[in-house]
Formats: sequence, structure tokens, C-alpha cells
Amino acid sequence: MVFITRRASFSAAHRLFNPEFTDEQNERIFDKCNNPNWHGHNYILEVTICGHPNPATGYLTDLKDLKKIINENIIEKVDHKNLNTEVDFLRGIIPTVENLAIMFWRQLEDKIPNGKLFKIKIYETENNFVEYFGEPVEIKIFDYQ
Amino acid sequence: MVFITRRASFSAAHRLFNPEFTDEQNERIFDKCNNPNWHGHNYILEVTICGHPNPATGYLTDLKDLKKIINENIIEKVDHKNLNTEVDFLRGIIPTVENLAIMFWRQLEDKIPNGKLFKIKIYETENNFVEYFGEPVEIKIFDYQ
Amino acid sequence: MVFITRRASFSAAHRLFNPEFTDEQNERIFDKCNNPNWHGHNYILEVTICGHPNPATGYLTDLKDLKKIINENIIEKVDHKNLNTEVDFLRGIIPTVENLAIMFWRQLEDKIPNGKLFKIKIYETENNFVEYFGEPVEIKIFDYQ
Amino acid sequence: MVFITRRASFSAAHRLFNPEFTDEQNERIFDKCNNPNWHGHNYILEVTICGHPNPATGYLTDLKDLKKIINENIIEKVDHKNLNTEVDFLRGIIPTVENLAIMFWRQLEDKIPNGKLFKIKIYETENNFVEYFGEPVEIKIFDYQ
Amino acid sequence: MVFITRRASFSAAHRLFNPEFTDEQNERIFDKCNNPNWHGHNYILEVTICGHPNPATGYLTDLKDLKKIINENIIEKVDHKNLNTEVDFLRGIIPTVENLAIMFWRQLEDKIPNGKLFKIKIYETENNFVEYFGEPVEIKIFDYQ
Amino acid sequence: MVFITRRASFSAAHRLFNPEFTDEQNERIFDKCNNPNWHGHNYILEVTICGHPNPATGYLTDLKDLKKIINENIIEKVDHKNLNTEVDFLRGIIPTVENLAIMFWRQLEDKIPNGKLFKIKIYETENNFVEYFGEPVEIKIFDYQ
Repeated sequence: MVFITRRASFSAAHRLFNPEFTDEQNERIFDKCNNPNWHGHNYILEVTICGHPNPATGYLTDLKDLKKIINENIIEKVDHKNLNTEVDFLRGIIPTVENLAIMFWRQLEDKIPNGKLFKIKIYETENNFVEYFGEPVEIKIFDYQ
Repeated sequence: MVFITRRASFSAAHRLFNPEFTDEQNERIFDKCNNPNWHGHNYILEVTICGHPNPATGYLTDLKDLKKIINENIIEKVDHKNLNTEVDFLRGIIPTVENLAIMFWRQLEDKIPNGKLFKIKIYETENNFVEYFGEPVEIKIFDYQ
Repeated sequence: MVFITRRASFSAAHRLFNPEFTDEQNERIFDKCNNPNWHGHNYILEVTICGHPNPATGYLTDLKDLKKIINENIIEKVDHKNLNTEVDFLRGIIPTVENLAIMFWRQLEDKIPNGKLFKIKIYETENNFVEYFGEPVEIKIFDYQ
Repeated sequence: MVFITRRASFSAAHRLFNPEFTDEQNERIFDKCNNPNWHGHNYILEVTICGHPNPATGYLTDLKDLKKIINENIIEKVDHKNLNTEVDFLRGIIPTVENLAIMFWRQLEDKIPNGKLFKIKIYETENNFVEYFGEPVEIKIFDYQ
Repeated sequence: MVFITRRASFSAAHRLFNPEFTDEQNERIFDKCNNPNWHGHNYILEVTICGHPNPATGYLTDLKDLKKIINENIIEKVDHKNLNTEVDFLRGIIPTVENLAIMFWRQLEDKIPNGKLFKIKIYETENNFVEYFGEPVEIKIFDYQ
Repeated sequence: MVFITRRASFSAAHRLFNPEFTDEQNERIFDKCNNPNWHGHNYILEVTICGHPNPATGYLTDLKDLKKIINENIIEKVDHKNLNTEVDFLRGIIPTVENLAIMFWRQLEDKIPNGKLFKIKIYETENNFVEYFGEPVEIKIFDYQ
């Protein structure tokens, strides 16, 4: 097994809050990230695929294809968007970087032509990042927006 | 003359538009950055001071003081904020990275205790940044928000 | 399971030597790092926590809390310090980057409020880094200093 | 078990093609990388070793030795070279980054003095990298050049 | 005056030699870079424009336009190419990073729609880069290839 | 004129204090950097040379020669050393990053074979760096050590 990773980036706005919490709870738990006027980030996304290289090409997967799949299924939907209100596959999700990683996995999981999706890694800032390997995780979908 | 630079970062939301343009004009000129639902960035700010080091300390300026000045006058006002609507010294300014550099200069210019403000550099993404050295530039203040 | 990482940095002095070795042995084995007048590094520390995000918040752990725990238990004790002589939890330890990773693990292991400590990663320079996942390792405590 | 990684870099030319494919096939599959006049990259190599630190030294392995082994067995053979035609241990191999990782592993596997080779990671550009952990993989050796 | 910079990258092969030198001279002067079988790099290019932002837009220049101009006039001509033999505007030029910067300047100089070309910066590796501001420099065109 | 820069790095220990100050003064002014037990950094040094490329080679200066000059005159003297007590050309100098830049300039100024020394840039941490262009600056030499 070999692991190949493609890096991409996008810039988006978001706000962290739980519509079932009081304002005080949202303020206490999400702090600056709860700003109702939004804030944003340059996110860096790394998508890792694992599998056996094809002996005839030495390629595990064609990175041009992988780039296109990442662009169509993720980047074009989130880049220069509001993650709370404008992204179909994030509707009702609190857009923490943990939840973004889980939802990006679900978005890509069955679209990898060669090899298998192994990891989604997202940097939210230069000081924090999340990694997700597809294990079952409960995620709550709210009726917000 | 010696030049010393302090780096800081902040995350913010913004939208680029001119309230005197039609929607079509804003769309054509600002493209993705005109999204009315906002987007955002992790900005990196570098503030450069020039002057003569004090022979008794070897310091041009105390970086702890400079850090505090940058935090109080810029970072605390823009971090996790909406640059169009929440920042006093950006009111009515189209928050392009060019304009941010100019307004950050004006914000810091007369607050440097030792040495002189020499340059404001801001990275908006890893692929574009602006540098401003304080030369007179016309900037328009709109009645928006 | 999701993995979230917080990055921090610190600057410290150290010297590598075994007090039971002869000067010749220390010189041969630790080479430049054996300088009795000390040298130092900007270390970069990454602390990775794993667990299930809380469905009500989308947070695996509150990064503000994690940052505070890392600061109080590690950064404040090692930043701008001498790793051989000034750090309580490193007393008698040869401060190789391997041993720092092990001792930082022991320092944080039982202080993570949500999730479990998964990995300590430390960059000593841009060309070498160590990763430690908590497996039992023998470490020798010398009577030095 | 502790994991220690040494980073190195090299600059090389290569071309991706399968001598058993038609020109059209090579063009379609390898695209820009099939340029018969060559292109090249600054590759970044990370070699990770795992094992138990020696309690007498706190070292898992002596990084000076590891650096020398990486230089003699890899860097001196590939740096400022043509990966298709000039590297003994790559003869007949399509020099994709996947195949480089596999062949670098085979090159280093039995030469690590303390600890065990755990991972080869190679960045081909800032946007793509491969990781290989030594699992059996079929690789085809062509009669080319 | 404000300065705005756009970053791009390309991967290419090259060889340094003067066709009027003997093999011994080329070997002595250009060393590893004289390899007749080529080597290559991931180059990073930064193009800096200076001028006055348009008060109606806050833009010094539209970065989408600048990106397009850089792509059409430089990146598409050099990316995944052989700099000695395949690039029209480099024909007969020894492709040192100094000469690349000068020729890229000449390529872009009169194509900037708003503002003026101020600087070309090129990283050849992470340890060396060149900056050129358009001052007259003699450059020799050889009859090679 | 073209500008070429070579990057190098070194790791060293230091302490900031003025032997003519009281302990209270040193503590107040230099704060954490005044730790009498030392601390240290991974410094990054960039040396910039300017001049006209030689038309026969396309080289402004031979980077192999420049690297050797930087190594012999700076890196070998400061790497894995104590900047206060072990470096001949820093004797009696308070080793702030401002003073290091000035003294490195004086160390290299008359040793550049082709072109002219234009700038010394030193990163002390990822958040602060100094640039010096050789203008006359007063620097005090103390009798310490």
C-alpha cells in the first residue's frame, strides 16, 4: 500500500453556534467564533488516497483526476462562500473544523476512482488542524438557516 | 538604520463591493469576492520599524511593546470580526488588502515609541500580498453600512 | 474518532551529555550538541488529541482549553529556559528531542479534559523531528545538576 | 516506540512514460509529465526511523549517521541527476513519486544501524506527496534506456 | 504607491553551460548544474506591481487579470518544459536563475494593465532566490540549440 | 543590478543583558531574554549580494563560493555555540538580533568576491526578523566575559 496526498485551499466565512443553545451558552462555548457578523479563514485541505500503484503507469491514481474530483465536490462549493448558509452538503452542520473534515470525507468517499480514501486533513489556521480517517462518528444536523 | 519586523495574524470575514456600483458592476469587478454572504481569510500582518538600535540595549525597539501596540490598535479590532461592518477605523472602506495596508499604516503611524514605521505587509492568501510604505494615497470612504 | 492538533513553540537552551561518560565519550557521541557552553533551538510542539466530537458543539475539545493546558504544563516551564537545569519535570533527563517528546507526553497525559492524548510531535530544527504515541519506553534519570 | 525523522532535499529531472505504450497513450496518461525534453522538481525527502531510544544517550539513532546514510545511498545518486537515465537503483523504473518512494525504501531498508525504517515520504511539489511504509508492492522494471 | 505581489510556481528542467567554453570550463564553473543529462527544479515566481489603488475599487490591479497575464506569458511557456530548448523567449540564454528573472521581466514589462512592473523574484530552491527590478543589464544570447 | 540571496541556518544559545545595568534594570528591559541560565534559537540567515551577472556565465556570483564564505566566516563560528561567550567577532556585544545583523555585515562586507554585500536578514523566531543594509550604526562593545 502506498499513500498519495493532494493539497488544495479555500477561503470561506463561518460562525460557530448551536441554535438550541441560549446566546449566553453560545458565547461561553464558542467565544470569538460565535460572532454573529461572521469571520473567516484560509483553509488548507489535504486528501490522502491509499492503494497499489498500477505497474504499467507507476501511478496510484491520476492526480489530475483527483484534483478535478476535489474541485468539483468540495472546493467549488466552499471557496469564497459562507459555510453556514451556502453549502448544500453542510446544511444544518455546525462548521467546526472537526465537522468539516467529517462532511468532506462523506462528500468524497465514494468518488475516488482508483485506491481508497484514507484521510481528510484540514488546517483552519497555522496553529490547528484536524485529521479524519472515516471511522463512524455521530454528527448532528440542525434546522438552522 | 536597522529594520525590525514583527509578524502577527488574524482571521476575518469580508465582502468586496462599491455601494455606488450596480450589482452587475460589483459582480463583474469583484467576482467571487463580491459574495453578499461573505467569505474570509487568515491574514498575516508584518509591521516593519526602522531606526538606530540603542547602544545600551542593542534594541531598536522593544518587541514586547511593539507586539502590544499592534495587538491593541489592530489585532483586537479585526480578529474574528467582519471587516466591512465591525471595525471602527475601516468604516466605509472597501476592505481590499491594498486598503487594509493603508488603513493599518494610518492606525499605527504615530504610535511607534522608538524608531519609525517603515512598512506594512499583509498576506491575504499564500499567493498574494501587499506592501505599503506610507506614501500619500487617495482612499475613498463610502457611506456604506 | 477524529484527531485534532494544536501547535505551539518555545525557545530554549540545552546541552547533550551523559554525566557517567568520559569527556571523550560525550564528545564523540554528542559532538556539537555536547558544547558545555550550551546552544539552543526554536522548538515547535504539536499536541494531538483523539476522540469523538460532541454532537452539540461539533468540538472534539475546546482548543482554548487545550492551549491553556499546553501553556501551563509545558510552554511556561520550558520557554526561554535551560532544559538541563531549570525545568522541574526534566530534572536528570538528557534533553534529546526523543526524551523531550516522552517527558512532554507524561506531563500532559492525564490532563486532557476531553478526548485522549494521541501524539506528541516536536521539531528541533526544520530538518528533524520526533513523534511519540505513549508506548512504554525506558528513560534514564541521572543525578546531574 | 519513538519515531524520528530526517529531512533532505534534491533537485532532479525526469520524464514519465511507459516504453510499451504508444505515444498517444503516454500523452493521454502522463500528459505534461510525458514531455520528451524532460522537466524537473525540487524533491523533499523525509526518512522516518522507529525504535527505542538508548537510555544511556537518549538517542534513538544518531542523526549524523542517518544523514550520512541517506546522503550516500540516495541524495548523492539522485541530486542534480536525470532520474530516468542516471540512477543505478532506478534503472527501468517509471520515476513517478510513488515509485521513487518504493525504491528509496528498498535502498535504505537494510542500512539503518539503530531502529527500523518506518516511512519514506516524498514531496514532489508543494501540492502533492507520497508516503510508503514498506508493504509489499509490485513494481515493473522496463528495458528502457 | 502600493505594491501588490502575485505568487506562481512551475517545474522545469535545465542545464547550465556556455557553448563557447570547453567541457572542463563548463564542469569547473557550473559543476553539478552542468549535467548534460539535465536536472530540474520547482521554481517559485513572485511578480510585484506598484501603483495607486483605484479609489472606486480599492484595487491596484485586478489579481485575476494579473494571474492570467503571468500564466499566458510565463507559466504556460515554462511549466513542465526544458528551459534550454523549449521556451521561445529563453532561446540562447543560459538559464541561471539570474537570467530567468531578467527575461521574465522583459516578458511581462509592457503587459501590465494597471500599475507598473516593480520586481521579479524567483526561488530556485528553498536556499536561494534572485530579485530583479528592471535596471539595464547586459545578457548574452548564444547560438545554442 | 540583480540581487541574489543565499539562506543558511544555525542554532545557538544567548542571554541579553548589559553588564553596566543593575539586575533590576536587566530584568525589566530584557525580561525572559535576560535568563542567566541562557536560552537559544534556530536562527535563519539570508545574505543578499547585488551586482551585474557575468554575461559569459549568467552568474552574479557563484553560490558555491558564497556558501563557503558564509560558512567559514559566520556559520562555523556561531552554530551550536554560545553567542555571548564563544564567538570572536561578537566579544562584548549584546547579542540582540539587531546587533547580530550588524556584526555579520562587518564580518562579510569585504569578503564578497563578485558583487557587493547588499543586505543581512536574520530571523530569530518565525515572528520577528531584522534587516540591515550596512548604514553606519553605533554599537557598544562591553568588557563582559
